[in-house]
Amino acid sequence: MSALQELLAFQRETEALAQIAGRLDWDRETMMPRGAAPQRAEEAAALEGVLHARRTDPRLGDWLAGATARDEVEAAHLRLIGRAYARNRKVPAALAQEIARTTSLAQGIWAEARARDDVAHFLPVLTQVIGLRREEGEALAAGGSAYDALLEDYEPGATAEGIAALFARMRVRLVALRAAILGSGRYHPALEGRFEAKAQLALAQEVAGAFGYDFGRGRLDLAVHPFSSGSGLDVRITTRVSETDPLNCLYSTIHETGHAAYEQNIDRAYLLSAIGRGASMGVHESQSRIYENQLGRSRPFAGWLHARMKAHFGAPAARDADALYAAINGVQPGFIRTEADEVHYNLHIMMRFDLERALIAGNLVPADLEAAWNDRFAADFGVAVDRPSHGMLQDVHWSLGLFGYFPTYSLGNVYAGCLHEAMQAELPDLDARLAEGHLAPATDWLRQRLQCHGGLREPARLIADACAGRAPDEGPLLDYLEAKYADLYAL
Amino acid sequence: MSALQELLAFQRETEALAQIAGRLDWDRETMMPRGAAPQRAEEAAALEGVLHARRTDPRLGDWLAGATARDEVEAAHLRLIGRAYARNRKVPAALAQEIARTTSLAQGIWAEARARDDVAHFLPVLTQVIGLRREEGEALAAGGSAYDALLEDYEPGATAEGIAALFARMRVRLVALRAAILGSGRYHPALEGRFEAKAQLALAQEVAGAFGYDFGRGRLDLAVHPFSSGSGLDVRITTRVSETDPLNCLYSTIHETGHAAYEQNIDRAYLLSAIGRGASMGVHESQSRIYENQLGRSRPFAGWLHARMKAHFGAPAARDADALYAAINGVQPGFIRTEADEVHYNLHIMMRFDLERALIAGNLVPADLEAAWNDRFAADFGVAVDRPSHGMLQDVHWSLGLFGYFPTYSLGNVYAGCLHEAMQAELPDLDARLAEGHLAPATDWLRQRLQCHGGLREPARLIADACAGRAPDEGPLLDYLEAKYADLYAL
Repeated sequence: MSALQELLAFQRETEALAQIAGRLDWDRETMMPRGAAPQRAEEAAALEGVLHARRTDPRLGDWLAGATARDEVEAAHLRLIGRAYARNRKVPAALAQEIARTTSLAQGIWAEARARDDVAHFLPVLTQVIGLRREEGEALAAGGSAYDALLEDYEPGATAEGIAALFARMRVRLVALRAAILGSGRYHPALEGRFEAKAQLALAQEVAGAFGYDFGRGRLDLAVHPFSSGSGLDVRITTRVSETDPLNCLYSTIHETGHAAYEQNIDRAYLLSAIGRGASMGVHESQSRIYENQLGRSRPFAGWLHARMKAHFGAPAARDADALYAAINGVQPGFIRTEADEVHYNLHIMMRFDLERALIAGNLVPADLEAAWNDRFAADFGVAVDRPSHGMLQDVHWSLGLFGYFPTYSLGNVYAGCLHEAMQAELPDLDARLAEGHLAPATDWLRQRLQCHGGLREPARLIADACAGRAPDEGPLLDYLEAKYADLYAL
Repeated sequence: MSALQELLAFQRETEALAQIAGRLDWDRETMMPRGAAPQRAEEAAALEGVLHARRTDPRLGDWLAGATARDEVEAAHLRLIGRAYARNRKVPAALAQEIARTTSLAQGIWAEARARDDVAHFLPVLTQVIGLRREEGEALAAGGSAYDALLEDYEPGATAEGIAALFARMRVRLVALRAAILGSGRYHPALEGRFEAKAQLALAQEVAGAFGYDFGRGRLDLAVHPFSSGSGLDVRITTRVSETDPLNCLYSTIHETGHAAYEQNIDRAYLLSAIGRGASMGVHESQSRIYENQLGRSRPFAGWLHARMKAHFGAPAARDADALYAAINGVQPGFIRTEADEVHYNLHIMMRFDLERALIAGNLVPADLEAAWNDRFAADFGVAVDRPSHGMLQDVHWSLGLFGYFPTYSLGNVYAGCLHEAMQAELPDLDARLAEGHLAPATDWLRQRLQCHGGLREPARLIADACAGRAPDEGPLLDYLEAKYADLYAL
């Protein structure tokens, strides 16, 4: 076997083991009995130890040095494996295991704290998680920015400085748009009534299928915080149900369907390879957001959805399709990021981005996080946080050590704006098909232009290739938002 | 660290990884989307490769040579780890991986074949599995009996010759008892009616709890073939539901509760160690069988059960408690091992034992298995097998490569007979408590006498220690059966 062949065979087993680690996480969030948590933490740490040993195996260095790429695909294998190897060699095995062990426990403690609105219960383990991730970031940065080093894991090539500049540009137009909407005197009420959980899940199942999710290689379950999990032939999604708010379940499902469809649609030739996963978290989020927002919250789709909700719930959820369209696009300050409208969503991200940079830099101590969160929220949203589960305890991310992850949500929105503009230019009958609940033209376009490539290309290049060569920027997203809400709020 | 400490720390991680492998199997049988099967086979093979490398790591040999046991517990660690190490060094890594990969696929093919009653669909992969396990048995036996070598994995110290002699002694009394019952002119009909699936599962949940199963460290799901999975803090059980036969779900659940309670009740100090699992498959089966039969099919328990079934189903399942007692102990030839009465059960095992010995020895080729099965079944049970899912396709075991496993079911019955005799002698009010659905005296006796010790002692010694020093033999089981059925059938 050549060095390249040996490298790829070794990598394939590593990817298979990484899939197992992901499935353990899925199990912990959906199926695991609570009393199993301490044992699971040890299991996760043991598997993390195996993965770390493989990812830092010196033979990788030899194979990488001896391998030559003959085409774009082989070059991508070498680039991705090489980058991960260089990164992983910098993190001591004991630290990697400790992070796995601590975050596995922290997630359970976070869930308890959130259920009891008990910040104090969460702070000790959060402090540990921050300390461990800071240590990891410093090991990776070798004198540079620890936060940038963590960010690099989720969005290769991105920096806190670049994101801060992007967010500053977006903020001006978003704040102006928000002010215009809230000052318009118009108000689009949410849906009212009770919506049976079983019917919500049946609707979620149907809509996920309509968006191209393959249940033969996946499944839909309940979780506290919806997520998508796995790659290739086993990609699972989760959702949650509130009987008074059917849009929570529905749009959580569509969002996770976007993530899952991306993984399911990657070229089968890349199965269990470094290319066989999404290109970055930002690109991943672009798929979940374009499914959820540009497609799922469009006026034509709302027409189809109105009929399907009536069929599932036995009565119309809104007066007519226009009222449903208004309800799924109502803009108002809310506590919860995952329920936020498209205007407020990026403001949620911007505050998390600033807070987590400060936590990692040590400029904010965990004991002050709740006050800092609540101050910033009041300033940006004009509302006082009424309880921690509506504030700093709402998201699972920090308990899992995912610092540097939040900004990729807004990058995803920016990418989604670019992709949507390009898709509209190339699919003139897009709206007519959406109105029939026929999502295939849109999802096929995304599959062929972007999803099938997996991690073959770097994020910015991948988006540009899908968008007729135009490098991604915030313009299309903000143009889309301003036009959409000018119409909805008669601005 | 001393050699012993290093050995135990290494073993702890191996045990944690083995727990993950078990949980993957649970997932495959309960949750996994069917289309994931090829990827899962690779994942299972990769993890098996990691486990095999750890179990054959030459450092184990060094640590074992350098370690000294200061007490019974340390001696047990060294004995169990040493035995496994000696065994695993004999099996090539490639063969171990191939067995994992093939059996993972074979299980899915078996499930399809069983659903379609299609023996031909199953034969090619069964042939592969037999060939691989024979190769493994021969590598282990080093010139001795391949079947004995496989059997050793499930019941240390047992041999085919010893089991054949035991079965010959049991057969004489069982055949005579069977003839007396079938010739008695009495017939105890099964329950009639439809029993809602949801109510069956609620009853199963209640009964599992009554038998001491801790749902805080476990869960109950549906599977084609009920099983128990995991050790320590995460021990899961499965059951199945037939709306016309509530006893299938109920007694499958009690059976798996016996297995699971054993694992849950092992001393916490042995968590994730070689001792932290049941002593053998036979001892494991003794726990599932004593829960299911000697306790769960006793006359006093039937009285409590009658009231609980009435509460769950809204109407009595049988005329009165005596009629229910008769129905749960009806003796008649049936196709399905897991539904067999206590008299026929061991006859099912005896035929599987003879057939699988012949398969491994090469005296029976898979193409002839269906005919051989059906001939033997007709001879032993006086009934012709009507379809393969009632015959050779009914059990999952052979698809998983579990040759040498079946006889441990009857060893378990023999051990259960011994334990029940000893328990009755020491707990004079046992029947009075069972009549109240109060299982704790019986389950506490089993926990303190046997379960808490995990793998600390060898099977025969463990049973003898629990039974006031009496070595296990078939006498108590057959005495119990003859007395029980003499009463039920007025023999």
